[in-house]
This record gives sequence, C-alpha cells and structure tokens, in this order.
Amino acid sequence: MSAAKDVLIVGAGLSGCLLAVYLARRGHRVRVYERRGDPRVAGYVGGRSINLALSARGLWGMAGVGLDRVVMERDAIAMPGRMLHDREGRTSFQPYSSRAGEAINSVSRGGLNLTLLEAAAAERGVEFLFNHWCLDVDLAGPAAWFNAPDQKNVRVEADVILGADGAFSPVRGRLQKVDRFDYSQTYLRHGYKELVIPALAGGAFAMERSALHIWPRGGTMMIALPNRDGSFTCTLFWPFEGAHSFAALPSGPGVRAFFEREYPDAAGLMPTLEEDYERNPVGSLVTVRCWPWQHEGKVAVLGDAAHAIVPFYGQGMNCAFEDVRVLAGLLDEHRGDFGAALPAFQEARKANADAIAEMALENFVEMRDLSGRAEWQYGKRIEQLLHRTVGDAVTPRYNLVSFSTVPYASAQRRGREMERVVAAVAERVPVPAVYDGAWERAVLEAARPLLGGITPVGGGA
Amino acid sequence: MSAAKDVLIVGAGLSGCLLAVYLARRGHRVRVYERRGDPRVAGYVGGRSINLALSARGLWGMAGVGLDRVVMERDAIAMPGRMLHDREGRTSFQPYSSRAGEAINSVSRGGLNLTLLEAAAAERGVEFLFNHWCLDVDLAGPAAWFNAPDQKNVRVEADVILGADGAFSPVRGRLQKVDRFDYSQTYLRHGYKELVIPALAGGAFAMERSALHIWPRGGTMMIALPNRDGSFTCTLFWPFEGAHSFAALPSGPGVRAFFEREYPDAAGLMPTLEEDYERNPVGSLVTVRCWPWQHEGKVAVLGDAAHAIVPFYGQGMNCAFEDVRVLAGLLDEHRGDFGAALPAFQEARKANADAIAEMALENFVEMRDLSGRAEWQYGKRIEQLLHRTVGDAVTPRYNLVSFSTVPYASAQRRGREMERVVAAVAERVPVPAVYDGAWERAVLEAARPLLGGITPVGGGA
Repeated sequence: MSAAKDVLIVGAGLSGCLLAVYLARRGHRVRVYERRGDPRVAGYVGGRSINLALSARGLWGMAGVGLDRVVMERDAIAMPGRMLHDREGRTSFQPYSSRAGEAINSVSRGGLNLTLLEAAAAERGVEFLFNHWCLDVDLAGPAAWFNAPDQKNVRVEADVILGADGAFSPVRGRLQKVDRFDYSQTYLRHGYKELVIPALAGGAFAMERSALHIWPRGGTMMIALPNRDGSFTCTLFWPFEGAHSFAALPSGPGVRAFFEREYPDAAGLMPTLEEDYERNPVGSLVTVRCWPWQHEGKVAVLGDAAHAIVPFYGQGMNCAFEDVRVLAGLLDEHRGDFGAALPAFQEARKANADAIAEMALENFVEMRDLSGRAEWQYGKRIEQLLHRTVGDAVTPRYNLVSFSTVPYASAQRRGREMERVVAAVAERVPVPAVYDGAWERAVLEAARPLLGGITPVGGGA
Repeated sequence: MSAAKDVLIVGAGLSGCLLAVYLARRGHRVRVYERRGDPRVAGYVGGRSINLALSARGLWGMAGVGLDRVVMERDAIAMPGRMLHDREGRTSFQPYSSRAGEAINSVSRGGLNLTLLEAAAAERGVEFLFNHWCLDVDLAGPAAWFNAPDQKNVRVEADVILGADGAFSPVRGRLQKVDRFDYSQTYLRHGYKELVIPALAGGAFAMERSALHIWPRGGTMMIALPNRDGSFTCTLFWPFEGAHSFAALPSGPGVRAFFEREYPDAAGLMPTLEEDYERNPVGSLVTVRCWPWQHEGKVAVLGDAAHAIVPFYGQGMNCAFEDVRVLAGLLDEHRGDFGAALPAFQEARKANADAIAEMALENFVEMRDLSGRAEWQYGKRIEQLLHRTVGDAVTPRYNLVSFSTVPYASAQRRGREMERVVAAVAERVPVPAVYDGAWERAVLEAARPLLGGITPVGGGA
C-alpha cells in the first residue's frame, strides 16, 4: 500500500461526502471544498430536487461504509410501486416487483446530505471548507483555485483532486479544455417545477404513502414522492414552450382551473398551489457525457460531474454512490495508487454511465406516455409473471436497474431482449377476461421457446 | 433601415474578415478583435492547415463583395479531380465532375486571410485590434473582455458581438453557460500532421499539379494539395494510437522506411521527410455542435465557432463563407435589425451545418477506405454517367456540395437517394470489359425506373 495521499474533493454534496468517508477510512488526508455554506449551520440550501428515490445501488454504495442502515432508518419511505392517476381521478397501483420487499425509497436530499456530511466530518483526517467556490484547476500541479469567503482567490495544492462538483462541474470545465476531451451537454425541451401536497391535520398522508405517484398525461406528467412529515413533493415535467407548457400557463387564476381539469384528484389536496406555482422556479434537465473522466491519474470527476442524467429512472444519486464504491474498491485493488485506480475507474464505469443516461431518457417516455396505456400495463404483467415463475434469468430491466447492482450496460442489453420476448408473447396471448391460471399457462407456453435467446447478466458493479 | 450599429467581431480569421467587409458596406461601425498579431506586420501564424480547398460556396460567399475573382487570380490552383496513389506507386485520376470547369481550388490559408484582412481594412469604418485575447463576454451588455497587449483587461461595449473566433471560440464558451444551451465537442481517434513535397529545381511540380492527391490505405490516408510555388502540402491522417498510428511510428530512422513501404512514390519526393515528421505537431480533429447560435439578437457565433467540422469534405471555410453571406442577406431582409436577423440566421443555417458535419465525417471513410476500391470507383462512374446524360435532376452529392449552393441538408438527402439508385444499378449492370456505348445504354436502362423517387433539390443557400 502506497503512502497516504493528500486528496482534495471539490463539492460537499451527496457523492463528495460519501467519497470523503471512503477515502478517510483508507488513511488519506481529505479536504472537501464546497461552494455553499455549511448546512449544519445555515440549513440546507439545495440546488436541485427536494427528494430522491434511493434504491439498491445507492444502498450498496453506502453499505461499504455502513451508512445504508442509518439512512434507511432515519429518513426513507418505501415505495414498492407506482400509483397511476388518470384524468378522472381514478388510481391504479402497479408493483415495481413481483418480489416482496423490493421497493425504491423516498429520501430527502437535504437530510441525506446532512447524514453523509456528518459521517464524513466525524472521520479522522477529513476537513470541510465551505463558501469556497472552485474557479479553476491546475492539472499539472495538481492544484485548485478557490474564491474564499474573504473574496480572495486561494491556490490549494494536493496529490489528487476529485471533482464531485455536480452537473456544472468546474473541475470538468477545466478538463474540457484539454485536447481530445469529448464533451456534450444536452437539454430536454421539458423543465420541472416542484409543488407540494401538505400533510393532513395530525400529520397523516393525503394519498397512499407507499407509492411513487404518477399522473401521466401523454407528453407531460406530474409525479409525487412522500416525505416523512406526511407531505408529498410533487414535480411537474412539462415542456418549456408549446401546448401544455410552462409558457402556456402563466401564474394567476388560470392555474387552479388547469389543475382541476388535468390533475383533479391532486388539485384538491394542494391548498398553496397558486403560490407554489408562481414562486417556484422552472428547472432545466440536462444530460452530460464526457470522456476521459480523469487526467494523468491525478485529477478526476465522478457522479454528476462525469455523467449528469435526467431523473426519470431515479438513478442519478444511485449511480454516483455506485461510482464511489467502485472507485474505493479499485483503490484497494491497486494498493492506494490513484495513478492506476483512476484510469481503471473510468474504464469500469463509462459504458455503464452511458447506459443509464440513455435508459433515463427512455424512461421519461415510458412514464409520461406509456404508463397510462393498457398495452404497456399488459406487458408489465407478462414481464412480472415470467420473473415470478422463470426466475432471475428473466429479471425485468426495471428490477435490474433498481433492485440489483448488475452493471447498467448489462441491464440495458437484457432489457432490449426481454422487450422483444414480451411483445411477442403479448401478440400471441391476448388480454384475458380474468388473469387466471389458464392465462398464466398460455403466457409461459408462448414465452418458453423465446427465452433461449436471453443473455445471462453478470455480477454486481 | 435602422441606424448603423456598433458591431464587435471577435476573430480576424477568414470568416471574421469577410464578415467585416459585408457589415462595413452596410454602414455599420466594425471593430475586429484578434488574439494573434497583425499578419501584415508579423507574417501569418496559422493555427491550422496550410492550404484549403475553396469551392462554390466559398466563392459565392466572397462574390457578394466582389472578392472571389481576386482570390482566384492571386492564389488558387484548380483541382478538377482526385489522383489516387496505390501501394505500388501506381496512380489513377478520377474527375470530380463530368462537367468541364467544375473543380475545387487549392488556396493558401495565410494568403487568403491576408487578402480578406486587407479588403476589410480598406473599408471605411473597420478597425482591427490585434493581440487582444477574448476572455469573456457579458451577454447582457453586450460587452466583451479582452486581455490587451499591455496585459491589462479591457471591457469593450458594442451593440452586437459576433464570434468568428473558431473551433475553440471564447464567445461560444460564454454561451455554453447559458441555461439550456446544447453543446458537444467530439474528437476523432485520428490526428493530422503536415509534411512537404518541395518544388523541383526551377519551380516545377513534382507530381500532377491539377489534382488533390490521395494515398488511401484503409483506415488511414495521406493527401497532398498543390501550392503556387510548386510545392505540395501533404497531410497524414492517422490514428493517435494503435496500428499505423503516430504513436506506432516514432521519429527516427524508421520513418523513411515506413514511407517507402506505404507511400513509395511520395517518399522519393520528400527530402526533408524525417525532419518534417519530427518537427511538425500532430493536430487533433474536432466536430463541434451547439444550439442556439445567438442570444437575444445581440450576441452570436458563426463559422467554426458555431459548427467546427472535420476537413474531409473541404467545406469548413466554404460553409463559414456561406454563413457570412446568408447573414448579410438576412440583415438586408430585416432592414439591418440584428434582433430579427440573428434568430433567422440560426434557423436558416443549423440544419445545413449539421448536414455538412455529418457528411464530412462520412467522407473520411470514403477517402481513406473506399476510394481505393474497385466497387466504389465503379459507383462513381455510374453516378457521373447518369449526371452527364440525365442532367441536374441527378447531380451527385459531391457535386451538390462542392459545385453548387444547394442547401447542405438537401444535398445530404439527395445523396442518400442516389446512393440507393447507384447500388441497384451496379448490382444489375456488372463491371464491363470496356466502357462503351452498350454499357452506357445498359446503365441508363437499369436506372430509368429508379429515378422517379429522386427528390428535386431546392435553390441556392
């Protein structure tokens, strides 16, 4: 094992804090520089969504330093399925898995960030420096320039600089100027705005607590995730311009009428709708791809800084936490040698990051357009029956992504294969009057000859 | 016509200088800021290739201000076709067009830049400021920050700021930070290095002067363009790493042996090969795509700054000059109102820039891999016969791109259609023993029923 290193992490967000814990436990000196103030003092000021869906990969990422249970106990609400809401206010529940206990978990970004920050701060050799804005990186040093709280610019040297500094990463901004650095940022035509369904008197949930709620409207949607205080955070995903867009619905009296027509069952639960709609900003949704993720074994990016994705598979944080644990594992494998671990890290993760970026874009279409359709729902039923009866060899893509650590790229490939099988079965076995044993036998019989082509998926990340 | 504007152009390269001429003639005050020194004083220091292929669009772009003839007379060498060189040193000539007089033209970047710069400097109201490095742009002003020759930073205000500042445009760098700005930079695995075939004693050309020379080697190639002084500028396009790469052939005695094996007829004409190979850098090749190209009618990018492309269709400069004339035309149409002309400009050009970016990438494969193959050469023969006999309705893609101002996007669409026709004809009419009248009749007969599906292409840019 080579000597302990002086590591500079840019960003005290979710992945920066978790990374600090892993590196400190490996004996490194870790300084974490953060643009914002200390949330332990000033309260959490988030730049992005209020709550997140924590699933298997995020839990695996935290489990390597024993933080998964703390987070689950302190903050999580299990969401074992989707609750779909139609225009008439009718709901239907679709479990995410045919297996009991498989659920994604609503957690608050602020609470989780604080838990991880406190865990990192409690480690020996970890130091946090807030109100330091990263201006530039000297790749050769390596060193980073920060605008310090006194407004002076300071240069900080280190052995290794790791950018966990998010979708608009200054560290990546510097890498982008290196010759032959591939880079893209692509925005959706849709933006998002958060609204709230408050808890009922006494703290009760106004809707089913154990579900991720979706109001698919074809081209647009609203979703809602539960919070431990009994409230739900709703998020609109609408186009910026055009029909059913943010531009088409200015703040004012038209807002409530629109919601009563489009989301009738939710509108009645939103007493502050007009104010929330007016006050809350419309955020944009970006996919960032780049390569390479590291420079000469001394400067690297990870998490959103390397691969910001859209939120529709609930995998941004999960993927970032998986990054962190994979990187820590590679450091162990290479005896603490960042010069070997960082190149191995980008090789191990790039294809998987690309796969989840693509699946997240596809899942937006699935959520907003398809999930409300009968044929899609029938396909899900077939998929789950096969999973329940045939077993792990046909685990559906959603489950591989959310309830396993099978590499994203393998999950994506398997997903394409299963999609063809399910479509073929649905064509041969029409929707039955009753979902009985005869239907199940017909589905299994139709599927059996098709399952030979399914590729086994590899082990965990 | 609205009042004359104060226009700041960033970049005194090819498109910046041409743009200055157009704007000055429309009565605007134009200041051109350039990072490098004044080439009239210091000599030309180019960042990129030594010579360029000027074709119809570039000429059209200059013709709007009467500069096309000057350039053609002063500097151009017509290249009416490709000269292919095989591994045995045998050559074959393929005309670019079945029409006499259709040729692309080798011009020197330095000479052309000087011609355009002098033309701009001679216009009333044009001012050049050299050794000013653009650091940032204030989009709201608009204003630009420059590092001036005294190393101080100066802020320059204007009504309109136009970035003609190349593939690594600082103006675009600022736009990239605007929310919802789509951006990508993608590098080829191949780089380029320039070499030279000097003139023979007395200034004679050592190879055929009237051709673009290509040594296709499958996956890699060398090309050579003639210069007026009797020399040729050769350019290697090789991968950075792997087989037949720059990394695989270090400087030293192995270089000549390699060239004698791979490019035997050229090697004998390159007395300074070893020194050139060692001294000249390996450049990288990037494609840049972005959107939008303008911000609130006050700041915009054009040419490489908006759409840097790889050089394999010889269209980078040609596309940029077309940009300039289209922009000038839209300014006339909108009576000098940049607020209307800049949005119209990006709408008019984006699809065409995307099309030529893609065709330029495809043409690399065509030049390095396909052009040496018999079936590809046979396809070209069929294409040219159809063009000669059927006429403009079946103008081949290469000709539409290089010898017309039909929009690139139309040329691309037409190219796909013609490709299918030619493939079908080649399948029905095998390569003949002699290219005689019987073969021509057979080709026309096979083609006739297929030509109904060809879409007419629109007018000029």
